[in-house]
Amino acid sequence: MIREICPIKIKRMTRITVAKGDGIGPEIMDATLSILKAAGAQIEIDEIEIGEKVYLGGNTSGISNESWDIIRRNKVFLKAPITTPQGGGYKSLNVTTRKFLGLYANIRPCASLHPFVSTKHPNMDIVIVRENEEDLYAGIEHQQTDEVIQCLKLISRPGCEKIVRYAFEYAKQFGRKKVTCFSKDNIMKQTDGLFHHVFNEIAQEYPDIEHDHWIIDIGAALVADSPEKFDVIVMPNLYGDIVSDIAAQITGSVGLAGSANIGETCAMFEAIHGSAPTIAGQNIANPSGLIQGAIQMLTHIGQVGVAENIQNAWLKTIEDGIHTADIYQEGTSSVKVGTKEFAAAVIQNIGQKPKQFKAVSYAKDTRLNLPKYVRKAAMKKELQGVDLFVHWSGSDANELAKMLEQFAVNDIQLSMITNRGIKVYPDGFPETFCTDHWRCRFKPTDGKSISKMDIIQLLLIAAKSNIDVVKTENLYSFDGRTAYSLGQGQ
Amino acid sequence: MIREICPIKIKRMTRITVAKGDGIGPEIMDATLSILKAAGAQIEIDEIEIGEKVYLGGNTSGISNESWDIIRRNKVFLKAPITTPQGGGYKSLNVTTRKFLGLYANIRPCASLHPFVSTKHPNMDIVIVRENEEDLYAGIEHQQTDEVIQCLKLISRPGCEKIVRYAFEYAKQFGRKKVTCFSKDNIMKQTDGLFHHVFNEIAQEYPDIEHDHWIIDIGAALVADSPEKFDVIVMPNLYGDIVSDIAAQITGSVGLAGSANIGETCAMFEAIHGSAPTIAGQNIANPSGLIQGAIQMLTHIGQVGVAENIQNAWLKTIEDGIHTADIYQEGTSSVKVGTKEFAAAVIQNIGQKPKQFKAVSYAKDTRLNLPKYVRKAAMKKELQGVDLFVHWSGSDANELAKMLEQFAVNDIQLSMITNRGIKVYPDGFPETFCTDHWRCRFKPTDGKSISKMDIIQLLLIAAKSNIDVVKTENLYSFDGRTAYSLGQGQ
Repeated sequence: MIREICPIKIKRMTRITVAKGDGIGPEIMDATLSILKAAGAQIEIDEIEIGEKVYLGGNTSGISNESWDIIRRNKVFLKAPITTPQGGGYKSLNVTTRKFLGLYANIRPCASLHPFVSTKHPNMDIVIVRENEEDLYAGIEHQQTDEVIQCLKLISRPGCEKIVRYAFEYAKQFGRKKVTCFSKDNIMKQTDGLFHHVFNEIAQEYPDIEHDHWIIDIGAALVADSPEKFDVIVMPNLYGDIVSDIAAQITGSVGLAGSANIGETCAMFEAIHGSAPTIAGQNIANPSGLIQGAIQMLTHIGQVGVAENIQNAWLKTIEDGIHTADIYQEGTSSVKVGTKEFAAAVIQNIGQKPKQFKAVSYAKDTRLNLPKYVRKAAMKKELQGVDLFVHWSGSDANELAKMLEQFAVNDIQLSMITNRGIKVYPDGFPETFCTDHWRCRFKPTDGKSISKMDIIQLLLIAAKSNIDVVKTENLYSFDGRTAYSLGQGQ
Repeated sequence: MIREICPIKIKRMTRITVAKGDGIGPEIMDATLSILKAAGAQIEIDEIEIGEKVYLGGNTSGISNESWDIIRRNKVFLKAPITTPQGGGYKSLNVTTRKFLGLYANIRPCASLHPFVSTKHPNMDIVIVRENEEDLYAGIEHQQTDEVIQCLKLISRPGCEKIVRYAFEYAKQFGRKKVTCFSKDNIMKQTDGLFHHVFNEIAQEYPDIEHDHWIIDIGAALVADSPEKFDVIVMPNLYGDIVSDIAAQITGSVGLAGSANIGETCAMFEAIHGSAPTIAGQNIANPSGLIQGAIQMLTHIGQVGVAENIQNAWLKTIEDGIHTADIYQEGTSSVKVGTKEFAAAVIQNIGQKPKQFKAVSYAKDTRLNLPKYVRKAAMKKELQGVDLFVHWSGSDANELAKMLEQFAVNDIQLSMITNRGIKVYPDGFPETFCTDHWRCRFKPTDGKSISKMDIIQLLLIAAKSNIDVVKTENLYSFDGRTAYSLGQGQ
């Protein structure tokens, strides 16, 4: 068979979607694409228009349905920064893209380039892996009393598993030694507790990679002070947002970092900085952030050699002192260049390796082994009670309790009232400051059970008694484990 | 009248509660109290026992009711660090104390002591004012589906007003020039939006103090990189937790910072570090953190002159190079001393001023003008719909929608389904990853109204149709303003 005797390696082109965005977007995208082309990236491009023009054209999401179709068909999206107009109900395209396409992982490598880019942290080389879909960023907010507004923090088992596995797979494929987890599970024992628990579980599958955990406040402080102590760090969404910005900033320039947003089917790559409209069109912007995003894209689609060549050429350009204005320093830099000239210098260096920085050398195939999430078997779930949240403008919890104790439903009783989490009944303190938002916990007396109909009955009595129930939270156990928190001070 | 002719200034003693705590607690408290006494602080002391011994004696809260009574009677509490035993359901005494006593403000000054304490940030001198009671730290968590756990973030109008006013009053009394607010109101438009809004409102009352706002991720990055750009920073609880740890860490030592926890009636003062049991009883711990806490206490109770004398003596001791082991550096320090010797050196320096550091000079009366919160008039609240959260193990939102569309209640209709916040019905994307936790929004058709009885009716139909509603969130408007968020992508 000819194919066995003489295997011809056919380079497969990958079709990608490109958006040049707003402000400095077009010029840094042109610079980046010129480098990809010169380095021999096997890509074909579909260009779409997103951002300011689309928003101002009356589309509040900043993207047309046709563009969505192209993004979804190609599955790989290289995106320049866009400008979201102020006011007018325009929605963040970044948030929507991440969520619609299920881009659960945000990966941001942050390395300092000492001594060529000024930094207080010369030995920093970390990768932040941020959960990208859930947590407080689900954006579910409700105001239900005059005084109190609520936002839901949602943490899911699949969300935790997917991001933690991503972090370990990334560490494995990119030769990283340690994965660290940040959470606040000393306070949020269930939500952050789940994240930490899943981290420990999955770490067992990667015995060659070290793992440890820090409480987010101490962890963030250590990243800010001694980033060289860390390698890969994985975090829920909000902490990841904060820590990834800290990490990028302390490298010395936020203009040098790219990020990848990875989902089960689609992926988006970008610079971390914005569209910088004040310097647009002047050929002075630094294209490095988008170049770094494009390098992550190339490793994602398996074009590892091209990625390696570009990264080494880029490192050499930086150490040659060929710098755009944002990082130019008298004495350190050798020449100040524009966007185009910087790209030309990188192209010139393709095939060369840096001498002072360590040249990168990626694994043959950097695509990660990420099986689709498979739903676990359902647990045995039992209803154990209900929290009724009441809008009440009184101040003495005992008075409210007296009203609620009248609620006679099948051995279901008021067991506790809290205000902003702290127990105020029974046995509250007069010093506790109370808002108009009271969480009233009802549970069956010992040994008795409670049903959905009992809860409806409670709501009915409340409605008839003019008790203003604004929300409910059912209390459950799963496989016998109580799955709701006690009151503070309970 | 004799009293008018010859007014005798009677120094009023302030009775305070002291807990020596665990680990290094007793020795740093003894050192601190010896300095207070030598400086002429007008205090009388009631000592209570809290912490490890009390926990292990079977009291899961780590404090007896008698001790609570003393704390509440004296209203001023100077507390050494304690050890919370691992496991066994022991509750954090710090969290409970803050919440029970309504200590809404946590104030942590963080200044570098360059060149005497090694730091990358020689010109840092900031004060973090952290909201201390609400936000995610209300600790209200519920798991209601196999896959998803929820934690409530609560932000209240009085909570925001009290902490923001505290920050501005503090700035005014301590001669600070600027108050900065951190929030994430680009994502959490209602909760963090309220915090930011109240900040802008109250800032107007302090025209002599500059004010500005940063999104928390960028703000935290700037604090980590360039803390000298900030002065006083005010934040909700979680952000404050993270940023105050960053700020303390990058001064060069977390052993030097104290913090105040202030409520409307009570206040607690402490070091920010823990009980460090491994070095306990060896006379090597640095008492500076607790000394700083005690200085905050003295300004709080109006003993400003004593506070000033101690602070200046302490600064002089540091610049004299008289250092405990934790900050001792060959070449910079002149002598390594123990806990007692450090305290003796501070006492020796009372009445003297530092020469290299700027001597402090407090206002005559540093007690802040903080009126009790007065509840606002109730707004006009209208029910506009309800979010039913459904536990459902299917994967196609259209299928769930079909079931829910059958719910015929007085012109109330299913208007949207989201999964982890992102709209999946109508017009969802197949790429969106879905968990088993579906938020199903019901609203009346145009022009119609909805009542509590309608919601109960919906729940009744759900129960009968085996739709597992695990929680509800009512949708309201206040004074005509819609007070709940849209779905992402809606």
